[in-house]
Amino acid sequence: MKAEIISIGDELLIGQVVNTNASWMAAELNKSGIRVVHVTVISDQEDDIHQSLDEALQRADIILMTGGLGPTKDDITKLTLARYFGVGMVFHEPTYKKVKAFFAARNFNMTDINRHQADIPENCVPIENNNGTAPGMWFEKNGKVIVSMPGVPFEMKPMMTDQVLPRLLKKYKPEPLFYKTIMTTGMPESFMSEKIKKWEESLPQHIKLAYLPQPGIIRLRLSASGKDKEKLKKEIEKYCNDLNNYIPELVYGYDEVTLEEVTGSLLRERNKTVSTAESCTGGYLAHLITSIPGSSDYYTGSVISYANSVKTGQLGVDPGDLEKYGAVSRQVVEQMALGIKEKLGTDYSLAVSGIAGPDGGTKEKPVGTVWIAVATSGNVKSKLFHFGEHRGRNIRRSALAALNMLRLEILKETT
Amino acid sequence: MKAEIISIGDELLIGQVVNTNASWMAAELNKSGIRVVHVTVISDQEDDIHQSLDEALQRADIILMTGGLGPTKDDITKLTLARYFGVGMVFHEPTYKKVKAFFAARNFNMTDINRHQADIPENCVPIENNNGTAPGMWFEKNGKVIVSMPGVPFEMKPMMTDQVLPRLLKKYKPEPLFYKTIMTTGMPESFMSEKIKKWEESLPQHIKLAYLPQPGIIRLRLSASGKDKEKLKKEIEKYCNDLNNYIPELVYGYDEVTLEEVTGSLLRERNKTVSTAESCTGGYLAHLITSIPGSSDYYTGSVISYANSVKTGQLGVDPGDLEKYGAVSRQVVEQMALGIKEKLGTDYSLAVSGIAGPDGGTKEKPVGTVWIAVATSGNVKSKLFHFGEHRGRNIRRSALAALNMLRLEILKETT
Repeated sequence: MKAEIISIGDELLIGQVVNTNASWMAAELNKSGIRVVHVTVISDQEDDIHQSLDEALQRADIILMTGGLGPTKDDITKLTLARYFGVGMVFHEPTYKKVKAFFAARNFNMTDINRHQADIPENCVPIENNNGTAPGMWFEKNGKVIVSMPGVPFEMKPMMTDQVLPRLLKKYKPEPLFYKTIMTTGMPESFMSEKIKKWEESLPQHIKLAYLPQPGIIRLRLSASGKDKEKLKKEIEKYCNDLNNYIPELVYGYDEVTLEEVTGSLLRERNKTVSTAESCTGGYLAHLITSIPGSSDYYTGSVISYANSVKTGQLGVDPGDLEKYGAVSRQVVEQMALGIKEKLGTDYSLAVSGIAGPDGGTKEKPVGTVWIAVATSGNVKSKLFHFGEHRGRNIRRSALAALNMLRLEILKETT
Repeated sequence: MKAEIISIGDELLIGQVVNTNASWMAAELNKSGIRVVHVTVISDQEDDIHQSLDEALQRADIILMTGGLGPTKDDITKLTLARYFGVGMVFHEPTYKKVKAFFAARNFNMTDINRHQADIPENCVPIENNNGTAPGMWFEKNGKVIVSMPGVPFEMKPMMTDQVLPRLLKKYKPEPLFYKTIMTTGMPESFMSEKIKKWEESLPQHIKLAYLPQPGIIRLRLSASGKDKEKLKKEIEKYCNDLNNYIPELVYGYDEVTLEEVTGSLLRERNKTVSTAESCTGGYLAHLITSIPGSSDYYTGSVISYANSVKTGQLGVDPGDLEKYGAVSRQVVEQMALGIKEKLGTDYSLAVSGIAGPDGGTKEKPVGTVWIAVATSGNVKSKLFHFGEHRGRNIRRSALAALNMLRLEILKETT
């Protein structure tokens, strides 16, 4: 089963947008056992689209196209496909209703342009778009499948996951690759690879390991293919368990779960609450926590004390300590954690104070120096971190480190 | 002058690595006036490389390849190219010396494998690699240029900037493209295209318009090519100014600037400060503001009042109003804005209260209902928004809408 991805859009060819769609789709297809043999990026031009389709149909069984489905006149994929297949356009009533409802829900009136979004080539099966107005389209030709989807990632991804992939699996029944991804936080790739060297060497030949690093997170992906899925699954689970002996505090979950989900679940299960006090992370820690639906069950709120006056005025940090030790210090971060915990009356609290950069660093406390505290019922603990020089990554790493401290503290108290 | 990029590597086809090389190269080529017409991603296989070269030579004058130049046996680009051109390999002494020096500087011994890195196809001009061991290769065939570079970004990028691009400019003397991107917020693509229809129709043929939507933001990109760069620049600027008559409140800046940067600059220039009180955005608004280096100059902090008790206890929201009108109401959001402004003593404040979803919606206030208030020296204004059903996007749109309200308020007060 070979697939080709055709990404349409001038923004990709001028380098304004990075083609993350193609890599996401490739990863999803691979997990399902469908091999991507070719990715093509072309402009919004009829000739280019026709030529790429001709070439792709020679190489692949499945062709997935994204882009050029918007309502404006520079979006030409739909008509181009109709002409490619030599068919006319038909008005698709259910799509029209869907588009109409989409606008009604947002209190906007529909325009003529939007009405045309319900016109589709007569040989296609439309694919519902639950996050936008342009439907996807499924074509079949000589036993091959051509799918056209919007280029907007938040429209394309659910369309792919919920509709296109299940249809492809049903049609082709590929032999799946078996994957398990181990989610870790708190150690850079090179150190981790030293630490888990023996474990890595113990893996049998048919189980492959890949390191997938992101700022603050390393995903370790184990993959294997074979007929006996149950046996593979057990085998991979054994190696996952083994890994815990090497890096017990770093593995926070499996299969793309986030640290904010894991921590939230621990709090919910135990009926506990948490609050936060943030300086250098500037709301990002609260944002991660509240990005989880239902987080209001365990998260009450935060004081973001960007200015020192807010640290003393709102969090009860001692002005003398602030003066003596500086805002980025054990003393201040612990007082921030205790202050917010008392103020909002939560079971736990987290506080972060550091130098995110690019300015504000000193010789003693260079950019990337971050103190993090976690307060529990009877205790407050803090830890000093040295991250890097990049502001955005320092903010992200600080928030992840705080969540991991909370996670470990909850587990310690209750197991 | 048309260029095609061929990216070689299985890691790209399984979605493990995002093809940032291609977008970076495309941006660099475009800036120089060389148009990229096609990007192809293929695996490390001889047949695929040969076929892609055949196809690319039909479409483009310049073909830039990356990947497959490492010393290990899965890196086959060099031999594949020699066979493609039907030539033998020669030992290139200066490259050998360079590789040898590279290892000596790192206290590593050279292996036989590394020695082969100095073997190059006899018809190529080698390109020095100052950041690694594999040289690049420049081929010419029937007046067309084919360049092969390493796939490692920190080896490829300087090779491209310092050697490949200057050679290409010298050979082809391309006419540069001129771009301007107009950043807008607050209106979906289809409505905007109705609203700016006349403006769009007024654009001359040689100026192209593209809509590049993201959640909450639409970028309008104007592009034109021609000999007289100054004239084009003036012409494009005229159309940018004209657009302001159609959507005066929506254009917040140009050329990839963010709303948080623009708002931050306005505050800094006027020596004003802002604080925030967030409910449904849960810290994301604060995070956007503090993602900008130096934001501590104008941002003091926030109270995130996720729980109602924090709204009354910390922000001074009247418990009676909270009971009567609900947390998502004009009354409550205005009191939140006034409360935080007074508490932190800032010139402006923003408050957001809404239903981000997926739960918590009612018939009267469905998911996506958001109230936003901006408080100024003598005033508080609030506005009701209806966003969609997706939690993450509701949070992002709310924060952007809040920043745009602040931006407009600052401009109104001071111009």
